[in-house]
Amino acid sequence: MRAFLFRVPEGLELLEYLAGFAERHGIGKAYISAIGSFSEATVAYYSFEEQRYVPIEVRERVELLSATGNISLLNNKPFPHVHVVLGRKDGSTVGGHLLRGVVVLAEVYVQEVAGGVLERRPWKHGLTAWDIEG
Amino acid sequence: MRAFLFRVPEGLELLEYLAGFAERHGIGKAYISAIGSFSEATVAYYSFEEQRYVPIEVRERVELLSATGNISLLNNKPFPHVHVVLGRKDGSTVGGHLLRGVVVLAEVYVQEVAGGVLERRPWKHGLTAWDIEG
Amino acid sequence: MRAFLFRVPEGLELLEYLAGFAERHGIGKAYISAIGSFSEATVAYYSFEEQRYVPIEVRERVELLSATGNISLLNNKPFPHVHVVLGRKDGSTVGGHLLRGVVVLAEVYVQEVAGGVLERRPWKHGLTAWDIEG
Repeated sequence: MRAFLFRVPEGLELLEYLAGFAERHGIGKAYISAIGSFSEATVAYYSFEEQRYVPIEVRERVELLSATGNISLLNNKPFPHVHVVLGRKDGSTVGGHLLRGVVVLAEVYVQEVAGGVLERRPWKHGLTAWDIEG
Repeated sequence: MRAFLFRVPEGLELLEYLAGFAERHGIGKAYISAIGSFSEATVAYYSFEEQRYVPIEVRERVELLSATGNISLLNNKPFPHVHVVLGRKDGSTVGGHLLRGVVVLAEVYVQEVAGGVLERRPWKHGLTAWDIEG
Repeated sequence: MRAFLFRVPEGLELLEYLAGFAERHGIGKAYISAIGSFSEATVAYYSFEEQRYVPIEVRERVELLSATGNISLLNNKPFPHVHVVLGRKDGSTVGGHLLRGVVVLAEVYVQEVAGGVLERRPWKHGLTAWDIEG
């Protein structure tokens, strides 16, 4: 399967870029890992009570210490699901489910995975999830 | 080599599941990376003085920001070694060597690695480790 | 492409070891991910104002919760770019761009990536970066 190592242009939003990248390359099932820096970001903690992602705004430039996740299909389109750990000037960290990350520099590894289609469907708690495999 | 991208069933313990997954698929040497959410977890810092993992209990639901590690053989059985970074409701993080993680949702990437057998043997400090390669 | 899963000898510095490993194996383009423990480390936050990495010294043994990054070419030599999240005794974390990490134990996954040469060139802000792909 194909693997990619590339830089995301400065100023773009990471998730949008990844979705577009996957669409351009016809990638429906992949592993994602990245490092770099965001000029600002919104991460989130999922509230089961409220059944929604509660946003945590990060309004300073941060090091992107790890972006980890995958691409699968949601409504027949490539959908990136990414969790991040961000590093502040003093080395302290903040993290969550990535809702928005404005790229200064992002170096992204995408590894396509073989096998059947992987699709997100409505699950519990207001979330979508893949079927469980045997 | 084979690669897998799959979800772990809710309520199961991640390390047990990974060991069983590796056994079912005959995987003895692999890279692991995952994201998701734990309903509770025990991480640890290894104390060289006490020669043991000192547990840190995480008794709240957390985002699994990164689970990183590998599978190799310990006593001829697949053994997952995983470190995690967990995210709390306010975006703060806690992490360590994973001793126990009860899965809400876990999306796991397993990439088998070719080449000779990789085995953990008794090392120093009360730990097990792989031989050093040339 | 080749994949490697190996341990770094105790007492060595991780980035130096990775650069040497890449040189020995002729690796110019790869994904890197590792876990383990450092006896001490220097991480950094990049200051755009000062156009330099401002070091953050970590003078205690820490768990290496994630080392994420890549190898590409800088001045025709393999250059590892790695971000880390480190875990202290109490589970708290500190992270940044890795400048120096003295290994107690490091279990490293290196996945070579196919395709053209990937080279760091002088960019903006005093940094080097890869060209943007189409």
